[in-house]
Amino acid sequence: MTPEGVTVSTPGPAAARRRRAVDVPGLVRWAREGDARSVARLISLVEDAGPALREVAAELAPYNGRAQVVGLTGAPGVGKSTTTTALVRVYRQAGRRVGVLAVDPSSPFSGGALLGDRVRMADHAGDVGVYIRSMASRGHLGGLARATPQALRVLDAAGCDVVLVETVGVGQSELEIASLADTTLVLLVPGTGDGIQAAKAGILEVADVLVVNKADRDGADQTVHDLRYALSLGGRHEPSGAWRPPIRRTVAARGAGIDALVETVEEHRRWLASCGEGHRRRVARAAREVEAIALAGLRERMGDVRGSAALGALAEQVVAGRTDPFRAADALLAQL
Amino acid sequence: MTPEGVTVSTPGPAAARRRRAVDVPGLVRWAREGDARSVARLISLVEDAGPALREVAAELAPYNGRAQVVGLTGAPGVGKSTTTTALVRVYRQAGRRVGVLAVDPSSPFSGGALLGDRVRMADHAGDVGVYIRSMASRGHLGGLARATPQALRVLDAAGCDVVLVETVGVGQSELEIASLADTTLVLLVPGTGDGIQAAKAGILEVADVLVVNKADRDGADQTVHDLRYALSLGGRHEPSGAWRPPIRRTVAARGAGIDALVETVEEHRRWLASCGEGHRRRVARAAREVEAIALAGLRERMGDVRGSAALGALAEQVVAGRTDPFRAADALLAQL
Repeated sequence: MTPEGVTVSTPGPAAARRRRAVDVPGLVRWAREGDARSVARLISLVEDAGPALREVAAELAPYNGRAQVVGLTGAPGVGKSTTTTALVRVYRQAGRRVGVLAVDPSSPFSGGALLGDRVRMADHAGDVGVYIRSMASRGHLGGLARATPQALRVLDAAGCDVVLVETVGVGQSELEIASLADTTLVLLVPGTGDGIQAAKAGILEVADVLVVNKADRDGADQTVHDLRYALSLGGRHEPSGAWRPPIRRTVAARGAGIDALVETVEEHRRWLASCGEGHRRRVARAAREVEAIALAGLRERMGDVRGSAALGALAEQVVAGRTDPFRAADALLAQL
Repeated sequence: MTPEGVTVSTPGPAAARRRRAVDVPGLVRWAREGDARSVARLISLVEDAGPALREVAAELAPYNGRAQVVGLTGAPGVGKSTTTTALVRVYRQAGRRVGVLAVDPSSPFSGGALLGDRVRMADHAGDVGVYIRSMASRGHLGGLARATPQALRVLDAAGCDVVLVETVGVGQSELEIASLADTTLVLLVPGTGDGIQAAKAGILEVADVLVVNKADRDGADQTVHDLRYALSLGGRHEPSGAWRPPIRRTVAARGAGIDALVETVEEHRRWLASCGEGHRRRVARAAREVEAIALAGLRERMGDVRGSAALGALAEQVVAGRTDPFRAADALLAQL
């Protein structure tokens, strides 16, 4: 824990961590009792994708599926981190435990800019109800895409009521972090991108709530108007009872509009629960996760087959007529 | 069997074949007793890659590794089929059983030109010691590459002493049929491709014997000279005892030079046996075959994962916390 009482964890060298023996059930128990170091350790274990990953996932499973996951996405400079900080404040005032996963490598929660955010988060001094974790250290998008759902499971099992996932702007479909969230907030600022551009970029489709931040700037009315028009075009054929993304104005830097934004997120949560869409989203999310793990496992085995040392001995047996190539291929796959 | 006594088999509709129950051990027994229809049926079964493929491969295994495999390759028009026919005649006169696999889709053994070759093969009337099979019906190279090694195993187990594999010209590395052979004959004709061009095309590397066919044409001496020069450049650093590809002149259409060519193939066979290179080649060939089957199996499973119906139920279990995504991925792969 930092002096400010906010837990900011960054992973140490992977090799050093692996050298220590790991008591995974113990870590999960301590994490659930509020021990920040155990939470950080568990996230490091799932990030490393080492031998403990599967045990961690298995131990977490019974405690998963409770946290409300709120995604924040938008272009750099729209105020994602500032909005995240403002949301944390409101959720903490309501007594809710909050986790933050900063997936955007350009986020001030990541790397060098971390200290500035610690200071900004300083009004949570002594508050053990907030975990902040930068995922950017994974470096490449593939690593992020693999590690982030697992880190989310750690924070969920650790008892976070809300997990805020801050991601780099939409359009990075490889990442598909937006698909992790129960509720996705798409942030815009006046002037930089009007509603038509937003519609073209496809962000209206992923948005559950549109947030016009820095709404005290010139052009805010025009941006809201454009967004409303773009939404009216897209929503024409929606069935009744469908969720129509509301547009909220905020000035996150001074906390303006954040209470109303939280209330909108709560409305969305109630809607998700009322019509079964929340469950459908979570099942679809789990299906994508399971599929990605299965495909990654098969891809790994293809690499193992290609450079296989076991192949030579099996080929000798085929040549000797003691087996056929198909049984040898089965044996090869079983050995790997 | 055809009236000429040469067994030319072409596969019928796959669905019709599959409807009949298959007695694989019986087919293998009859094939080994010289029943041409059983040989043809077994090749059809391995071509189809249906459920019987594995059983066929397992039944064949104890009888594999006996046939001498001779590959013939070269550009269209160099006389591969004519040379194959001439070689069959010499091998049959020596009392050896011969199989022919025509992998080249442009081969006269394939499709419409088949009849012409039946006539040319007519001097084997009543001869049950020759099997000819066109593999071109597989259509695409991937299918050929998969089916040809298995068809070779059928002819090998059926008691062929020699199997001639006629392939489309080198440079089709995807096919790698040349890698199937114990001895690879590269055919050229005077004028069309001189030795330097051959060296550039990489065919000298795959050649165990270079055959200048239609050697009664003008320019034959020059072609032989060019080939000799190109070989002297490539072979400079070879260890002593290495095989240096000899150059043979043939006029296959009237059988000239074929006896000497067969003797050269026999010399190569003795060299392969004397230094262990023959065994090394067969092990390498089996290893490639096993690897290709294993990779194809994994690729198929990736396709199954992507469109999987089982995924939904597993995702529900993950959401309910009854399992974790990694165990679910294991279960998914086990189900497929």
